Amino acid sequence: MESAATQAPLAPPNGRPYNPVVTLNGWSLPWRMNNGVKEFHLVAEPVVRELAPGMKANMWGYNGQSPGPTIEVVEGDRVRIFVTNKLPEHTSIHWHGQRLPNGMDGVTGLTQPPIPVGKTFVYEFVARRPGTFMYHPHADEMTQMAMGMMGFWVTHPRDPNFMRVDRDFVFLMSAFDIDPGSFTRGVNTMLDFNLWTFNSRVFPGIDTMNVRQGDRVRIRAGNLTMTNHPLHLHGHEFVVTGTDGGWTPPASRWPEVTADIAVGQMRALEFDATDLGDWAFHCHKSHHTMNAMGHDVPTMIGVDHRGVAAKIGKLIPDYMVMGERGMADMGEMEMPLPDNTLPMMSGDGPFGSVEMGGMFTVVKVRREQKPGDYSDPGWYQHPPGTVAYEWKGEIARPARSSSAGGQAMPRAQPTPDVEVQVRKPSGHAGHH
Amino acid sequence: MESAATQAPLAPPNGRPYNPVVTLNGWSLPWRMNNGVKEFHLVAEPVVRELAPGMKANMWGYNGQSPGPTIEVVEGDRVRIFVTNKLPEHTSIHWHGQRLPNGMDGVTGLTQPPIPVGKTFVYEFVARRPGTFMYHPHADEMTQMAMGMMGFWVTHPRDPNFMRVDRDFVFLMSAFDIDPGSFTRGVNTMLDFNLWTFNSRVFPGIDTMNVRQGDRVRIRAGNLTMTNHPLHLHGHEFVVTGTDGGWTPPASRWPEVTADIAVGQMRALEFDATDLGDWAFHCHKSHHTMNAMGHDVPTMIGVDHRGVAAKIGKLIPDYMVMGERGMADMGEMEMPLPDNTLPMMSGDGPFGSVEMGGMFTVVKVRREQKPGDYSDPGWYQHPPGTVAYEWKGEIARPARSSSAGGQAMPRAQPTPDVEVQVRKPSGHAGHH
Amino acid sequence: MESAATQAPLAPPNGRPYNPVVTLNGWSLPWRMNNGVKEFHLVAEPVVRELAPGMKANMWGYNGQSPGPTIEVVEGDRVRIFVTNKLPEHTSIHWHGQRLPNGMDGVTGLTQPPIPVGKTFVYEFVARRPGTFMYHPHADEMTQMAMGMMGFWVTHPRDPNFMRVDRDFVFLMSAFDIDPGSFTRGVNTMLDFNLWTFNSRVFPGIDTMNVRQGDRVRIRAGNLTMTNHPLHLHGHEFVVTGTDGGWTPPASRWPEVTADIAVGQMRALEFDATDLGDWAFHCHKSHHTMNAMGHDVPTMIGVDHRGVAAKIGKLIPDYMVMGERGMADMGEMEMPLPDNTLPMMSGDGPFGSVEMGGMFTVVKVRREQKPGDYSDPGWYQHPPGTVAYEWKGEIARPARSSSAGGQAMPRAQPTPDVEVQVRKPSGHAGHH
Repeated sequence: MESAATQAPLAPPNGRPYNPVVTLNGWSLPWRMNNGVKEFHLVAEPVVRELAPGMKANMWGYNGQSPGPTIEVVEGDRVRIFVTNKLPEHTSIHWHGQRLPNGMDGVTGLTQPPIPVGKTFVYEFVARRPGTFMYHPHADEMTQMAMGMMGFWVTHPRDPNFMRVDRDFVFLMSAFDIDPGSFTRGVNTMLDFNLWTFNSRVFPGIDTMNVRQGDRVRIRAGNLTMTNHPLHLHGHEFVVTGTDGGWTPPASRWPEVTADIAVGQMRALEFDATDLGDWAFHCHKSHHTMNAMGHDVPTMIGVDHRGVAAKIGKLIPDYMVMGERGMADMGEMEMPLPDNTLPMMSGDGPFGSVEMGGMFTVVKVRREQKPGDYSDPGWYQHPPGTVAYEWKGEIARPARSSSAGGQAMPRAQPTPDVEVQVRKPSGHAGHH
Repeated sequence: MESAATQAPLAPPNGRPYNPVVTLNGWSLPWRMNNGVKEFHLVAEPVVRELAPGMKANMWGYNGQSPGPTIEVVEGDRVRIFVTNKLPEHTSIHWHGQRLPNGMDGVTGLTQPPIPVGKTFVYEFVARRPGTFMYHPHADEMTQMAMGMMGFWVTHPRDPNFMRVDRDFVFLMSAFDIDPGSFTRGVNTMLDFNLWTFNSRVFPGIDTMNVRQGDRVRIRAGNLTMTNHPLHLHGHEFVVTGTDGGWTPPASRWPEVTADIAVGQMRALEFDATDLGDWAFHCHKSHHTMNAMGHDVPTMIGVDHRGVAAKIGKLIPDYMVMGERGMADMGEMEMPLPDNTLPMMSGDGPFGSVEMGGMFTVVKVRREQKPGDYSDPGWYQHPPGTVAYEWKGEIARPARSSSAGGQAMPRAQPTPDVEVQVRKPSGHAGHH
Repeated sequence: MESAATQAPLAPPNGRPYNPVVTLNGWSLPWRMNNGVKEFHLVAEPVVRELAPGMKANMWGYNGQSPGPTIEVVEGDRVRIFVTNKLPEHTSIHWHGQRLPNGMDGVTGLTQPPIPVGKTFVYEFVARRPGTFMYHPHADEMTQMAMGMMGFWVTHPRDPNFMRVDRDFVFLMSAFDIDPGSFTRGVNTMLDFNLWTFNSRVFPGIDTMNVRQGDRVRIRAGNLTMTNHPLHLHGHEFVVTGTDGGWTPPASRWPEVTADIAVGQMRALEFDATDLGDWAFHCHKSHHTMNAMGHDVPTMIGVDHRGVAAKIGKLIPDYMVMGERGMADMGEMEMPLPDNTLPMMSGDGPFGSVEMGGMFTVVKVRREQKPGDYSDPGWYQHPPGTVAYEWKGEIARPARSSSAGGQAMPRAQPTPDVEVQVRKPSGHAGHH
């Protein structure tokens, strides 16, 4: 995380004004105005993407990257997109969520012929509805989306002050199944993925979201994996203000700290960045904040490995005799990893290993982060006395309950047929 | 998809009037009025269901089909259902979502004894609450629901004009795990299903939903698989107007293009069919719009198969050396499939293979589709110039950004530790 | 289920008043007032938890139990929590959903150093926001949460009448992967769990929720597994009144009978217990209401096992030749199970085996259940004539449709390419 600075987004060079979004580890696609039409050019092609320092993967994407660049237009813009196919098979693009002529919807076979290898097709429509969209193939979907083909699309409102926010971050979620030491994913995997990404990047390779205290912050995310991702923000509640179907009525919104984003769904999460600090933002499924390697390791907890190490050594290399005390060592040890493999838990914070991977990043709220400044301010400097600290004194004993019947606390009498493992608090009180 | 015409739903022959629903690839159960009580008869029994032309499966269902017939009653109706058990094991029926006497709730062991093999039981209650329901066994659930035992239930409102719509389609989602060449599913599968269905049918065997431009359309779906299904509609936004718990307050609704339906949940999706065309409607999980065969195929992308074909040939038949350029060939090639097996991607559209399977169908919006006409109007005839088309000219170069600091577009300087694979747009501009 | 009585919750012995919650198969943690600060002591340590009578498991938890005790405080309380680490590896605690100083957020490496083995750390903050929270490690998360480390936290509102309910039940959901005959789970399992729990207990070992007719009932649940759990209530509709982010606006609520709770999410479900009876409450994924053993059993439905029994006997013990008629036998048969293994479907109700396991319990609504009385009232006594019953008479034939065109019911003419297996109702009518 040392210096993955986020640059300021690009202001529109022509056309109508808007407040640009920031694409995590990405960029927005430039256009050309041609007789009042905004012209874009997407090139579908194989790419190499660095997932995080230390690991690259073969993917398919657009314009040299997976995901492709973000497209930003303004409500009412007439848009013309040239799509050149440099993949080894045919493709098409579906403009997910858009209102458009049926023949521009991009469903191979149903609304258009596929774009053959080496050819360029033209899509043209008016961006009728402002909001949050994405684009992806609708041809050999299982393979092409699995390989990383997708991109964000934002149609800004005609009135730049409509639902204006101070920071507007966007990313897509994708999943890969790449064996340690390998570069190419299994495209037919349905469930057992081992790399869970924001914009085809994993922690510690994901940009942090750096904001100013008091900012209204919007985070827009879309999901193109095979399972739901519950995005969890620390230290602040948010509301879902929009979907790929439009903006949500204010009266309909629920305060949340975890928003479940289903496959094919997009959500705009908004909150006021009131509290200073480095606040974790991640998928709450614990395997999705790990990198590869974790899922096939046998459980060694409670096992005295001295007797079995020899046997296990025949199955997995010596450095894998791990985990008899848990897995936290994985984030710390110097293991001879296979080439092109990330440790399963990594990323150094100001207090040591963060023991995370995958879909994890940090929202940094600072007093001094100026409008338009997206650079990384470094780690938060905690005011004295506000960090959890070691206690070396005695710990006093809890009070007894005043409840009727003289019942001790905690519940002294487990019901006869339900053996509740109760540790009496008095058993702790005197020992520390 | 050629001619899977949908018939008009059946008008109620007696009892109070209602606006009947259309069950995809199904039908509604007739009843008998007996002293003011609506009497239905369900027969639980093994059935054979055609998943799509070319593949049949052994299932369990009701009255000769999986799912069983739809039950339609009117709010306030007293209902008596005879359930005859012709399965090889005992069963029961739970009336999911209904208000009823506890002893009519259908939970084997808890609220009633099981219905033994060969016996008939009677359930009787008043349909107190209008809305969207389903029925399924609550006995050996894992097996019986996995085998296809389920059915839709609609309780129409007393006032036929309450939340009236022009078209009201219903279906249930189920999943099967049937090996290619086999007829019977594995009932203990928890995750690795390979056939994902609407009403036990897969694309191209699923009825299309054919409506008139301007119609208010309701699609009610329930999920009895083991995972969420995000149903995605192209070209239109919708709202969720109801659940199996009741109707949603209008102020609470979010505009959506993808509704995630959890297991055991039912949702009524509504939209105005404003835009003409053939609009895809499908689960957005890419593996759920594929048929069997796909999931175990090894990735060949980027591999020169000439050297390895011999080795692979020992593991899988020759015609499976596929996918070195992607998987789109799968929808096109003439492969000698095992008997009783569907191609993984199939269904011909007006522009060739749609490359889909599973939970996929089409909403056809036509100017000329009369009220009450549910027949298939054929493929959409696109107005000239509204279909994505091949471009053979030059593609002009994007403008440069006017943003401060002379920053080139796209971002010229990837941050040092984040290698962004940037393809310069100028690199494309001149080559096509 | 025989006598797993629920005791009354503990009234606060000091500090400000509140309406205590009831933790299923658990208890609330006592505290000590120290100069106006509520002091709690959590001890992270290995524990043994009985999942249900007949099976124990090695877990990690707090204060002798998994999940740890519930923490109950009042909005505005200053809270100090001592956390002693008796695990074999370092740990930390994240106070999920709380507003607090960044350094008290509990993210190892990012906001604090880990708590070393044998040490005690102090967390201190003001409970600023009333609502529904949880605590769990943010160190080696995959292992520590998988091993059962988690606990509930309720911050009661300052005004005890704010959103007051008559009964307030809380629990967390977790999943384990324990082979039959084993005591310790595989911590790296991502998907294939076989024990799905409420508060680390499975049916029939889960407390029932016993309420009085007319009570306003709240059930608060949080999910720390790896997948969504759709919680389904029989016989009543409910609304979601709160999340871990706060209380939902009344206008925003949907009536539901099944609420999907995503990983890392918490939900407060509320309903009026209007209808007497024993109402099932469970996850609607059918494999999540089974205990271990089920998932790897091969399908024998429709197979005459006499010929293959010998072959199968080589793979699995003789008593596993089951299921040729379905799986309901599993809940009934006297099988020689491995030690420390629960039957996959079990739990006796008043009408025999309930054929359930895992995430299943019962809401018992009784006229006579007094305020504050949480004891098990036994099985519901159904009024005469309100239980589904066997029918031995004839079953009359349904009426014919009055619909135009003379169309028979059910649909007499399956469309030519869609073979609908229609069993004519007249075919049933005369046979029973």
